[in-house]
Amino acid sequence: MSEPPPEQVVDAAAAAPSKSELKKRAKALEKEKKAAEKAAKQQEMATQTQAAAEDYAVAFYGQLPLNQSQSRPRRPRVTIASLSSREEESVLLRARVQTSRAQGNKMVFLNLRQRTDTVQALLLVTPEKVSKQMVKWAAGLADESIVLVEGIVKKSPEPIKSATVSDVELHITQLHLVSGIDGRLPFSVEDASRPDLEDDADESTDAQFNRVLLKTRLDNRVIDLRTQTNQAVFKLQAAIGNMFRNYLDENGFTEIHSPKLQGAATESGASVFKVSYFKGSAFLAQSPQLAKQMAIAADFERVYEIGPVFRAEDSNTHRHLTEFMGLDLEMTIEEHYHEVMELLDGLFLSIFRGLREKYSDETELVRLQFPADEFKWREGPEGTLKLTFKEAVDILVADGVAREELDDIKQVTENEKRLGRLVKAKYDTDYFIIDKFPMALRPFYTMPDPDDPTLSNSYDFFMRGEEILSGAQRIHDPAFLIEKMRSKGVDPESMKPYVDAFRMGCAPHGGGGIGLERVLMLFLKLNNIRRATLFPRDPKRLEP
Amino acid sequence: MSEPPPEQVVDAAAAAPSKSELKKRAKALEKEKKAAEKAAKQQEMATQTQAAAEDYAVAFYGQLPLNQSQSRPRRPRVTIASLSSREEESVLLRARVQTSRAQGNKMVFLNLRQRTDTVQALLLVTPEKVSKQMVKWAAGLADESIVLVEGIVKKSPEPIKSATVSDVELHITQLHLVSGIDGRLPFSVEDASRPDLEDDADESTDAQFNRVLLKTRLDNRVIDLRTQTNQAVFKLQAAIGNMFRNYLDENGFTEIHSPKLQGAATESGASVFKVSYFKGSAFLAQSPQLAKQMAIAADFERVYEIGPVFRAEDSNTHRHLTEFMGLDLEMTIEEHYHEVMELLDGLFLSIFRGLREKYSDETELVRLQFPADEFKWREGPEGTLKLTFKEAVDILVADGVAREELDDIKQVTENEKRLGRLVKAKYDTDYFIIDKFPMALRPFYTMPDPDDPTLSNSYDFFMRGEEILSGAQRIHDPAFLIEKMRSKGVDPESMKPYVDAFRMGCAPHGGGGIGLERVLMLFLKLNNIRRATLFPRDPKRLEP
Repeated sequence: MSEPPPEQVVDAAAAAPSKSELKKRAKALEKEKKAAEKAAKQQEMATQTQAAAEDYAVAFYGQLPLNQSQSRPRRPRVTIASLSSREEESVLLRARVQTSRAQGNKMVFLNLRQRTDTVQALLLVTPEKVSKQMVKWAAGLADESIVLVEGIVKKSPEPIKSATVSDVELHITQLHLVSGIDGRLPFSVEDASRPDLEDDADESTDAQFNRVLLKTRLDNRVIDLRTQTNQAVFKLQAAIGNMFRNYLDENGFTEIHSPKLQGAATESGASVFKVSYFKGSAFLAQSPQLAKQMAIAADFERVYEIGPVFRAEDSNTHRHLTEFMGLDLEMTIEEHYHEVMELLDGLFLSIFRGLREKYSDETELVRLQFPADEFKWREGPEGTLKLTFKEAVDILVADGVAREELDDIKQVTENEKRLGRLVKAKYDTDYFIIDKFPMALRPFYTMPDPDDPTLSNSYDFFMRGEEILSGAQRIHDPAFLIEKMRSKGVDPESMKPYVDAFRMGCAPHGGGGIGLERVLMLFLKLNNIRRATLFPRDPKRLEP
Repeated sequence: MSEPPPEQVVDAAAAAPSKSELKKRAKALEKEKKAAEKAAKQQEMATQTQAAAEDYAVAFYGQLPLNQSQSRPRRPRVTIASLSSREEESVLLRARVQTSRAQGNKMVFLNLRQRTDTVQALLLVTPEKVSKQMVKWAAGLADESIVLVEGIVKKSPEPIKSATVSDVELHITQLHLVSGIDGRLPFSVEDASRPDLEDDADESTDAQFNRVLLKTRLDNRVIDLRTQTNQAVFKLQAAIGNMFRNYLDENGFTEIHSPKLQGAATESGASVFKVSYFKGSAFLAQSPQLAKQMAIAADFERVYEIGPVFRAEDSNTHRHLTEFMGLDLEMTIEEHYHEVMELLDGLFLSIFRGLREKYSDETELVRLQFPADEFKWREGPEGTLKLTFKEAVDILVADGVAREELDDIKQVTENEKRLGRLVKAKYDTDYFIIDKFPMALRPFYTMPDPDDPTLSNSYDFFMRGEEILSGAQRIHDPAFLIEKMRSKGVDPESMKPYVDAFRMGCAPHGGGGIGLERVLMLFLKLNNIRRATLFPRDPKRLEP
């Protein structure tokens, strides 16, 4: 009842076999496969029969057939995290073999892993239950194999330091291979989990272990992501997204989804990806800026969007990606743009508090690999530190930075981290806001300050001295907007639907855009945005 | 402290004016603007002074200066929805003028709107408070103007049918224009709100009113979105996304964000958009299929993603878009792929129940414009109707469809709606599942049935006879996957990182992908997917 999958259509077009021919071919292939499988099975069984003569445990271990949903016995399986409460129970679970270590030919220790949880398991030769052959087979299991384990949960004689579940261990009674390893792993999950030094280029240290460089990790991201650190990082990423949404849902926002394919290279022509679109071209949205403002003109009042944004900038830094997740919002203003700035501040505080209250386990797990001071912010009546751009400049000047240097907008970025350090020393906070940026530093749609037209109603938010949010009141008057576009060299005709939205009446409004990966990177001090991204994209990386 | 906005850089590169020149230019422009504003203001004031001689209400109405956040009096503003509980209160609110209607030169009725709520307001000449000039000015306000209104809430003498708040009306004391209309509206929000007939091409009916065609609506989407219907449609869209996330969060899923830029035209080569990527090319992801399976190989266990998917298919139908929102999930299987199918069923039931329990107001509002039978599904012990593909074919054959026709995969789609009608008649449900699709109809990564290799462990979900979800157990064995790729004409080398993920061990898994806009369209019976999309994209539409 579904449509044909496209590759089927392509297939048919290339060789043009008829439907019945295709069926025949598929049947023939299946027949061949079955015959080969049968032969292999017969040989295997012959070998096994011989072995079984002396192996009473033959039914208790070995490779399972490929799971094609052959049956559904509905046997309950448990999590490693729950084992502490299951002493003396017989349990069934699926897990990775993180490491295995044989002791003589009668015993093997397995470190079993499920995401961020590990437990020690042991297999010991036991008459009529565990055979020598079974122990030998288990000792030969490749690291990262997936096994189905049956065993008895036993109190461990002493705390097990090498596992997250330290009070119990699993005495294996049955052990089957669900999925094995084909070839050699590029690196071990253990090596990938060792504490990281700030500078990836410095390979001289940690000589006793194999260090895994960031490039190697990213080239083999699937295995790198299996570290307990990365499992925690991405739980935290999901948590930030969730807290962002919850706060905004509670504050009357509606989630929207705006198109990433655009008809014109809008906002800023320089850094837009061009797409072949049937007989013409389209462009990838650099942000949902235009769409979310049009949603305000369409009376949505308060909107947010979580979606990819695309930047065709050839920046190869620790904090730039060509594709990242934008947490964007836009809302009407009743009186003053500080309504937006304060809502955004409340949003960040709720995220920070949520991370501290509900995700301290994950944060601490990450810190084992990426040591960092605890992220600090100001609470209570004094509230978040808010500086004007001028005050921020004065702080830097007082620290010895030449004022002329600060006037040069290209130098500004380099001074951000310095400002972050000065603010931390003076105010003991890793989080602050800078308000009232010069108009010259902001995009055309930014509302100028009512008293000083060289300033604007705009703000940036900072974490550990790096910008994580940029926002402003926007111009909602079409004539004024057109004037500003022209003064910044943007052709209003190139953005007609956007300008027209304001001709149909639009409430005063403002908003901001947050980089999800930057918030995650800076909260955890991961030092590179790629570590905060599942499968990062930069000018030199499009895979995996 | 922020980076220079890109257009600033472009600007500088083009004309290369120095920083101080730019500043000078900006100042000169501002000066000109101020001078012009001053002159206009003086003239206006002169006119007003003359008028004020006879207009005691001059301070109570008129256009407000452009809101640049000049001040913040912090005067509370209320919502129209809250007015019923504010009888005799003096209130302040911002709203759209949906319509205005003068009665003689002493009274004007305004219909004020905030999203899905409307209230009747009236302005009556009153000594020392409301002048004739004020009433005249109010009567001249263009529809869709945004006004700031002060007034007293009064019990209405009889229920007001033309407003959603029917028990009170607002007696205006002050009325100011926040944002006016520049030019003529393409259509009125009232016309755009009239009940829609199924066939947009049929323009002969409704001759007494201006009918607004879908194309006209979409060309002017910002005003079209202001209808109460559309405000409700997009509240429901956000609600579905929220319920999707909540259900999965509660069931142990982690949200992921996978890149839309891909290095190779994977999955199916035919319908992929090509992107210029620095000196090379990239391709837009047709789904997060590969990434979410790699997340499973990376031990994420249960993942979901809400993100745009891109299809370069030149389909101009009521249900195809080139960009839409995919609600995707993938999870490990312990024993049988029906674990996934049943979770997906539970997900849909929780969404349907949520819509019925919490969003019946919005659903009913939409039904006023798009009449539809209530969406029906089966609850209780009998549960959701599950048919095998074979049973579905039998139902169609019993209804007179030629079996040969059903064997031809290209004819299948056309029979979906017919099947939907037959199922509805027989089982009284708009929602059902078809399981066990022929392998020939599914993509290469689909797991074949263990007993019949011509069938597969795959399913589609249907609403009102249209497919809204497609899913399956996937092949997690690399050798078997490569075999299937080759048999479907896909080069395994072209998807190396994907295939390699399974070489490093991967648990059995399955999942599915849901089209958000299709679910919304079919639940509400909007008859065209563009109506369920904020700013739709199809082969012929890239704007607004």
